[in-house]
Amino acid sequence: MDHKSIAPEKRASIGARRNPATEEAILEAAEALLRESGLAGFSIEAVARRARAGKPTIYRWWPNKTKLLLDVYQRLKLKMEAVDTGAIEEDCVQFLLGLFAYWSAGPGQVFRSIFAEAQSDEASAAALRDYAANRRQHSAKMFERAIARGELRADSSPVIAAEVIAAFAWSRLLTGRLDADEADLRAVVRQMVGGMRA
Amino acid sequence: MDHKSIAPEKRASIGARRNPATEEAILEAAEALLRESGLAGFSIEAVARRARAGKPTIYRWWPNKTKLLLDVYQRLKLKMEAVDTGAIEEDCVQFLLGLFAYWSAGPGQVFRSIFAEAQSDEASAAALRDYAANRRQHSAKMFERAIARGELRADSSPVIAAEVIAAFAWSRLLTGRLDADEADLRAVVRQMVGGMRA
Repeated sequence: MDHKSIAPEKRASIGARRNPATEEAILEAAEALLRESGLAGFSIEAVARRARAGKPTIYRWWPNKTKLLLDVYQRLKLKMEAVDTGAIEEDCVQFLLGLFAYWSAGPGQVFRSIFAEAQSDEASAAALRDYAANRRQHSAKMFERAIARGELRADSSPVIAAEVIAAFAWSRLLTGRLDADEADLRAVVRQMVGGMRA
Repeated sequence: MDHKSIAPEKRASIGARRNPATEEAILEAAEALLRESGLAGFSIEAVARRARAGKPTIYRWWPNKTKLLLDVYQRLKLKMEAVDTGAIEEDCVQFLLGLFAYWSAGPGQVFRSIFAEAQSDEASAAALRDYAANRRQHSAKMFERAIARGELRADSSPVIAAEVIAAFAWSRLLTGRLDADEADLRAVVRQMVGGMRA
């Protein structure tokens, strides 16, 4: 809520502007806590203690635990540029391989914690929903390019394709099945893109 | 471990055979607890207290919380017979509509709790993995029938199709998006089955 009627000094006092050093300390503390004791040991209180920050400061910048977890997750995220090999099947296979490797290196556990949190807390679920909607718009571009170059039908939906491929990847992460090899993933992608109709 | 060398009286003493009345009381107590206070109030101890059963009895029959949750979930599950309309697109749409309605009526929260539990506990993850593999074999039959009647290509994979449609459904459940209407679901199914290639 960015009401123009609120005086600037008032907005400054609620800490709308983040202090980068404090923010960094909080995110680092959160990441370390998660790594060491998982979601069970993760609380705003524990993060505050470890970061030597005030709990109100954390709540001001991250109104709930999931928003903080999502920032930790994104911070860990390698700059995975949208793959663009010029062939949609190859793009999708490389996208999944990159994602599974990235998750396996550690951040997958953070993302799993976020999903766990979102199952019993509505604010967390909303944060995850927003995040996912955002990511869908992003990975839809892969399919938009393939439509533009005539590889995919103009009436196919990039956003549906992005949702289905993400749902598939999530389901592998959430059931601890990131050990798929390239041939497995290629078979899934081929069927997703090529369909099944006789 | 069903070693023939263990004497029968020994096996009886570990309570391998369940008492149906006690089992029912435990499942009912577990369901009531989940309904009233969600996963936060759910523990083997609380279930035991409510069912007036011993904790060792519960642990004997359900070695971990997720196995108990999965039994509660399955007990709630309407007998959703495999849909068979004679057209694969229609089968898939009806399958998703039935599943979303079933989840929305309550059991979806139990299944969400199971997913949450499986994100930090390996035994729970394994139980969920087994359950999902089982369900895949079951819903693959829908696609096998469509291949048999020549509607789908013989080289398409029913198990991949079953995994992808389940993953899509899970992702909607786990992000609290069960409000899809039939037209939305039909668009997703059409693209899954028909593919996107020009």
